[in-house]
Amino acid sequence: MNTQQTAEGAARPAGRPRSEKAERSIIEATLDLLGEGIGVSELSIESIASRAGVGKTTIYRRWSNKEDLVVDALATLKPPIPLPQGGTVRDDLVTYLRVIQEETRHLRTRCIMNIAMSDSERHPRLAERFRELAVEPRRAVVAAVLRRGMDTGELRADLDVDMALALLSGAMVWLTKWSDGHSPADLPERIVDEALKGFRPRPAE
Amino acid sequence: MNTQQTAEGAARPAGRPRSEKAERSIIEATLDLLGEGIGVSELSIESIASRAGVGKTTIYRRWSNKEDLVVDALATLKPPIPLPQGGTVRDDLVTYLRVIQEETRHLRTRCIMNIAMSDSERHPRLAERFRELAVEPRRAVVAAVLRRGMDTGELRADLDVDMALALLSGAMVWLTKWSDGHSPADLPERIVDEALKGFRPRPAE
Repeated sequence: MNTQQTAEGAARPAGRPRSEKAERSIIEATLDLLGEGIGVSELSIESIASRAGVGKTTIYRRWSNKEDLVVDALATLKPPIPLPQGGTVRDDLVTYLRVIQEETRHLRTRCIMNIAMSDSERHPRLAERFRELAVEPRRAVVAAVLRRGMDTGELRADLDVDMALALLSGAMVWLTKWSDGHSPADLPERIVDEALKGFRPRPAE
Repeated sequence: MNTQQTAEGAARPAGRPRSEKAERSIIEATLDLLGEGIGVSELSIESIASRAGVGKTTIYRRWSNKEDLVVDALATLKPPIPLPQGGTVRDDLVTYLRVIQEETRHLRTRCIMNIAMSDSERHPRLAERFRELAVEPRRAVVAAVLRRGMDTGELRADLDVDMALALLSGAMVWLTKWSDGHSPADLPERIVDEALKGFRPRPAE
């Protein structure tokens, strides 16, 4: 048995609940530091440990490296979107864009996502894992909504699903990018209604 | 007369051409530092001067503060888009998206724009001036193309110009965001053709 006492072991007050609470503190500390503008390169396990009030070993017990921790922290900002209620395709698409709108309302989230995008150029593995963990599951849900609409005839049978997704999501991000978090409440409806003009079946010419 | 010798005066080799060349070095040094991941907050006139090989006073003679210099540097990455050739609306829109595509091909440009977006949350005046200087002129050119199409009947007379712009530009940015600069060559055409399905006049139902 290893009898070496870790700094953490020494610092932890007796009886403090461990894993879950510590994990949440570590995630929050990571997001806080990113939100303050500290890039992934400058971010250190040491500074996260100190901010979270835990020892470095507590972090390393759960995450073997900084990038994995950052990905898990970022993913908490992009939880799975609510499963569509099976109403009209229009309703489900509006719900999807409203989730994006709500997320961009918070300055901290915008700062963190911007810095993550910025750093993903230098940390391709981070970008890759974030895509797998947070972007792709959402894409799959919205793609399924679009495919349902193609099946029921609400949408053109020859719709390009990936392109439709890019038009919707891209317009939402574009219109909120410079809005300082104050995009109009009906923006999701307006984008969906404009996009649907091209997504619906065309009457015979 | 002030006889105090500035560091710059001492350092400048005799006969070196001043204003224009120095200005270019200062802009390049600013972009280099941003491209290396140094945020606007950490960026100092001192570090720019040292990288550009000029004295601080040379910078202050032209820019009274750091934010103005950053805005001018960023604007060089988003020059005015080529005036539309007056072909079809489709051709002009493809040209516009191709400009965005070319710009995102360069890692340095992507890094710099990401860090600028990230910092604009903390430097709202920077975001505001960048919008005025680089974003708005482009928006006006593409809006004019869309309005021309509405006049000639190529596009629906009731098209929402701002929304159309957001769908086109947003989709382009969305589809290149995770592409590491390697978006397919025909992406501008594919986006424009998909978007035009909704922008063209609908046959009578």
